[in-house]
Amino acid sequence: MTIGERTQLKINTDRLMHSIDELGAIGAYHDAEANVMGVHRLALSPEDAEGRRLVKRWFENAGLTVSVDAIGNIYANRTGLDSKLAPVMSGSHIDSVPTGGRFDGALGVLGALEVVRTLNDLDITTRRPITIAAFTDEEGCRFGTDMLGSAVATGRIALDDAYGLTDADGKTVKQELEAIGFLGAEPVGKRTPHAFVECHVEQGPALIHEGIDIGVVTGVQGISWHKLIITGTSAHAGATPMGFRKDAGLAAARINCRLHEMCTGSKYGSEMRATMGVIHPEPCMINVIPGRITATVDLRNPDDNAMHNAEQDLDDYLQHITKELGVQIESRQTARTPAIIFDESVQIAIETAAKTHELSHRRILAGAGHDAQEWSAVCKTAMIFVPGLNDGISHNPRELSTPRQCADGINTLLSVITRLADEGE
Amino acid sequence: MTIGERTQLKINTDRLMHSIDELGAIGAYHDAEANVMGVHRLALSPEDAEGRRLVKRWFENAGLTVSVDAIGNIYANRTGLDSKLAPVMSGSHIDSVPTGGRFDGALGVLGALEVVRTLNDLDITTRRPITIAAFTDEEGCRFGTDMLGSAVATGRIALDDAYGLTDADGKTVKQELEAIGFLGAEPVGKRTPHAFVECHVEQGPALIHEGIDIGVVTGVQGISWHKLIITGTSAHAGATPMGFRKDAGLAAARINCRLHEMCTGSKYGSEMRATMGVIHPEPCMINVIPGRITATVDLRNPDDNAMHNAEQDLDDYLQHITKELGVQIESRQTARTPAIIFDESVQIAIETAAKTHELSHRRILAGAGHDAQEWSAVCKTAMIFVPGLNDGISHNPRELSTPRQCADGINTLLSVITRLADEGE
Repeated sequence: MTIGERTQLKINTDRLMHSIDELGAIGAYHDAEANVMGVHRLALSPEDAEGRRLVKRWFENAGLTVSVDAIGNIYANRTGLDSKLAPVMSGSHIDSVPTGGRFDGALGVLGALEVVRTLNDLDITTRRPITIAAFTDEEGCRFGTDMLGSAVATGRIALDDAYGLTDADGKTVKQELEAIGFLGAEPVGKRTPHAFVECHVEQGPALIHEGIDIGVVTGVQGISWHKLIITGTSAHAGATPMGFRKDAGLAAARINCRLHEMCTGSKYGSEMRATMGVIHPEPCMINVIPGRITATVDLRNPDDNAMHNAEQDLDDYLQHITKELGVQIESRQTARTPAIIFDESVQIAIETAAKTHELSHRRILAGAGHDAQEWSAVCKTAMIFVPGLNDGISHNPRELSTPRQCADGINTLLSVITRLADEGE
Repeated sequence: MTIGERTQLKINTDRLMHSIDELGAIGAYHDAEANVMGVHRLALSPEDAEGRRLVKRWFENAGLTVSVDAIGNIYANRTGLDSKLAPVMSGSHIDSVPTGGRFDGALGVLGALEVVRTLNDLDITTRRPITIAAFTDEEGCRFGTDMLGSAVATGRIALDDAYGLTDADGKTVKQELEAIGFLGAEPVGKRTPHAFVECHVEQGPALIHEGIDIGVVTGVQGISWHKLIITGTSAHAGATPMGFRKDAGLAAARINCRLHEMCTGSKYGSEMRATMGVIHPEPCMINVIPGRITATVDLRNPDDNAMHNAEQDLDDYLQHITKELGVQIESRQTARTPAIIFDESVQIAIETAAKTHELSHRRILAGAGHDAQEWSAVCKTAMIFVPGLNDGISHNPRELSTPRQCADGINTLLSVITRLADEGE
């Protein structure tokens, strides 16, 4: 077969969806409000361990060589024609948020497995090896640091620092890796793939609203998180004339409106996003002016310079509000990650693959963090997004991509992997 | 003595403060944050009962004839020279909010008692009788309706409706009146005083900031309370482009800013006040756009027409926000009281009394509800405000008026009561 013929290969959609359902049954629970099944499979929990054992067994049944590294990442290797060439790696994670869905992470791992199963069915061997990966604790919900496994594997986070992270009960990552039997022997930091490709649900509304089949992910936004503590004076809503007030709630409202204004116009680019997600007044009573507000600011921007300007301007605005409303504002940055720009050639490979399968596609920015952003530090990398129903809702039991949506993504992944795996040095 | 001489009489400040301290010890608790003693004396609680028994004993020891009506209001009557003339009534309440101070209500009851004790000391009998009153459940914290006792006594609320009100444990007002032994025999609605005067702490910052000794209360603002439930769409802060958002938090912020704008300018008069006290987002997470906000709006205005216009304009603005941000807003009015205008002649009597005692004074609007507003429906009525430290904070353990501030108010009350009680038919 030529490469051209290979890129028109199709996966077995039923087998893919069956795998997603089977893994999704581990940690499944019934969400009463939405009347759907959700997934509770926190990193290094008994449910995660059960999921890991299932996935490992599937990898082995597909004829792959499985190894586990010191941070618990699972790698499954398929031999290529030239074993001296670096492999093409594809994967994601199988841990979930506390009340998640079946697709976030799982589609990337089981999609890569379906790619290999399809190649096995057709007895196709690529030039380069193919490695499927399932990374430890991408969500960060239990130990507080997301993309943990891939960050350790690619050198951003030191292994010992990762080992020392604790959950709410004081259990460490290392203890829990040992407890579930996934403290592997392979040293971290030794793998340098030829390329990394990850398929993931979009977790946003853009593709489904525009009727686009495939998102070609251009990169990941930089993130800047701030916790604001605004202190005014709590006072009686009836007895306190407006001129005497130091209304912490009004200060938070002004800042929220300003955040929205910052996302209109072009000063910070067209992809600037800002959200005040936490708003917690004290007291919280109908006839009392809030004396204190805890609020959070979440800024996203794919351009580091624009993000820097936005942060500066926000600081200036906080100063302005302090003076205008007579409140005090304590602002603390609680997270900051730079923007990631994915590799152009891999994006083009994804576009080519989508065209081959006659799928509509458009370039799109990732709004959330992904394992792929860690691998982009060591090899050429990009991601494939598939749309989801319910406005692309994710981290929620209502997360849902149809068999067709999943198959579109994994058919594209199949074509991209086979194309990249046939590349020379 | 002539009336002129009587109006220069002075109360016994030490005795007044001792009474305030002794009543304040009932239901007292230590507030750790402020390191002061607060008062927890909810209506018809065991603490309220203990306070009532103490006050009743003091009334009897002062030679007064005590009776209790069917809603538990305590009246203490001092004979006048002409028993056919209607009495001058003065009083307030002794119930407190859950975490209150020693002065709110208590100053009005114990101040009227001090007036009578002073008249007793000097062996002065006024032409008209004097009645001291302690009204049931002014705060409304336990059974949900404020000014309950005075509203029943003056006919705004029917006795049976009041009896049926329940607390959080399902106990009714009638059960609890019986339980504490204050379900009195006197029918309600039979008392029509010649005049009603109440001394109260300002519960606001105006007097203390301006260095004014006495507030001559012109009336009580109308109140309009609204509960807003704003429904947008909860979504990922990173993955959701700004154009796809239905941010309930932003809607609440816009409304809060608008409320503040409504209080600048003159469209609704110079005394318009507006507060968003409750702001409760769901979910309340740094990286999730709030899908739902519960918020409250508290509007105050001393002019009923201006209030009506403000309510209309707020409704229009909510409609506007609904369209602009794509959210739904359910707005429910949870309370509405008209503005109260106090009697001009009683205000002049208070001003005259303040001048006699060489006290600075100014007219001021009451920001909160008071028993006096109920009595203004049946007789000429006004109130005396005294300033408080800590910006006049009230409904708080830090509520504090100095002996001098209290004495200024009660000396003024003494002069006003004696003047009004010497008036003919």
